[in-house]
Amino acid sequence: MADPLRIVLVAPRNPLNIGAAARAMSNFGFTQMRLVNPYEVAFKEARSAVRSQYILEQAEICQTVGEAVADCSLVAGTTAAAHRDLHLPLYRLEPAGELLREHLSAGGPAALLFGSEKFGLSNEDMSHCQWLLRIPSREEHGSINLGQAVAICLYELRRDAQAAAQRFAPAATAPSEDYERITSLLLDLLNRSGYMNPLTSQSSELKVRRLVRRLGLSAGDTEAWLGMLRQILWKVRETDTPEC
Amino acid sequence: MADPLRIVLVAPRNPLNIGAAARAMSNFGFTQMRLVNPYEVAFKEARSAVRSQYILEQAEICQTVGEAVADCSLVAGTTAAAHRDLHLPLYRLEPAGELLREHLSAGGPAALLFGSEKFGLSNEDMSHCQWLLRIPSREEHGSINLGQAVAICLYELRRDAQAAAQRFAPAATAPSEDYERITSLLLDLLNRSGYMNPLTSQSSELKVRRLVRRLGLSAGDTEAWLGMLRQILWKVRETDTPEC
Repeated sequence: MADPLRIVLVAPRNPLNIGAAARAMSNFGFTQMRLVNPYEVAFKEARSAVRSQYILEQAEICQTVGEAVADCSLVAGTTAAAHRDLHLPLYRLEPAGELLREHLSAGGPAALLFGSEKFGLSNEDMSHCQWLLRIPSREEHGSINLGQAVAICLYELRRDAQAAAQRFAPAATAPSEDYERITSLLLDLLNRSGYMNPLTSQSSELKVRRLVRRLGLSAGDTEAWLGMLRQILWKVRETDTPEC
Repeated sequence: MADPLRIVLVAPRNPLNIGAAARAMSNFGFTQMRLVNPYEVAFKEARSAVRSQYILEQAEICQTVGEAVADCSLVAGTTAAAHRDLHLPLYRLEPAGELLREHLSAGGPAALLFGSEKFGLSNEDMSHCQWLLRIPSREEHGSINLGQAVAICLYELRRDAQAAAQRFAPAATAPSEDYERITSLLLDLLNRSGYMNPLTSQSSELKVRRLVRRLGLSAGDTEAWLGMLRQILWKVRETDTPEC
């Protein structure tokens, strides 16, 4: 199925940013780039972007924003402005991403507009948009680099809420018997090393067992720990044996 | 409160990427950058990054990864590898971000490591990490530009799940009486224009009312529409009046 999302860069100036936008598109699996009045030289230089070449080669050049969004049933613009009166609904990227995802998964072509590095989208550009979105940056430094802004928006579109909702799959932890084997080897070692006071050895044993239990031992690591402890125990036993 | 997250760039080469990382940090309100063995010249050039200067000026230079993460109770690394056997748990950014957020909000200092542009984190670098995270890019082109990777990770950390869960606040829509006022003006206009067939006018009226109802009229726009319709109606009435 053809990619239903058009990434529209309006009057981009810096070839590095065009290349960075193409790379982010390739990273996240989007292919349809449209450039409105790109600075000619800039665009040609950007064609050197590694591994995203195919996106730049098939990018469409448009004279106007109207032309770039003509076939789209949803047109959303990006802005760094948090308060400016924009005459349009302004949403944070999180809910905006959800609406875009829904529209795209229903097959509807959509356009996401990014303004030029220096001025952003003009009021004229915005008049083609149904709504605007804002990446939740600090108000004191809201202006995000063009290439980074494209990358963040595309990440949000590919973000998997299910993956986020799933808690960390707990790393396979060792079964209790492994903890017990390690504890008993360690206790043997501590006894032979003179760490345990015979008068308090019972409470010390409890402390050691708790210390080991809190280790958070990975399932595959038990044998390595037992091996190290056995080797040390062997050395300690050797020093125990009176030399003949 | 001091910023508990250290953004650690290991052996970065390109000054533009160091500058881009600093800009993303400033955008999302992080301040603690650490550079492990940066390519000397690169780092000095990056100091010219606009508006993020303060981050680069206070960036700490470290000789080793160990030094850069010494005060951190959580150390996470980033990787583009989806399958390589990394000897460490590997999570997608979504759940990884959640764990980092929890750790940071509990005040625990954490480090997030990014490898060099060319090679990523080495096995040696990774041995300092508790776990690794991967930005969910396409496996065919998984390698994300360093500056963009930093921006995406920091966005995920600042992402507000509440904001995402909230559905779009419906734009204030016009009350029904506004639709009715527009409908009745439009019907008047259509009658005078000869659009309505007297024989079917009742069903036509219903169609027009439904058409208007589906417009999704914004609350503040009613008067502008009424004004336009009244003006057209005035013109139509004028043509109705036989000239004397």
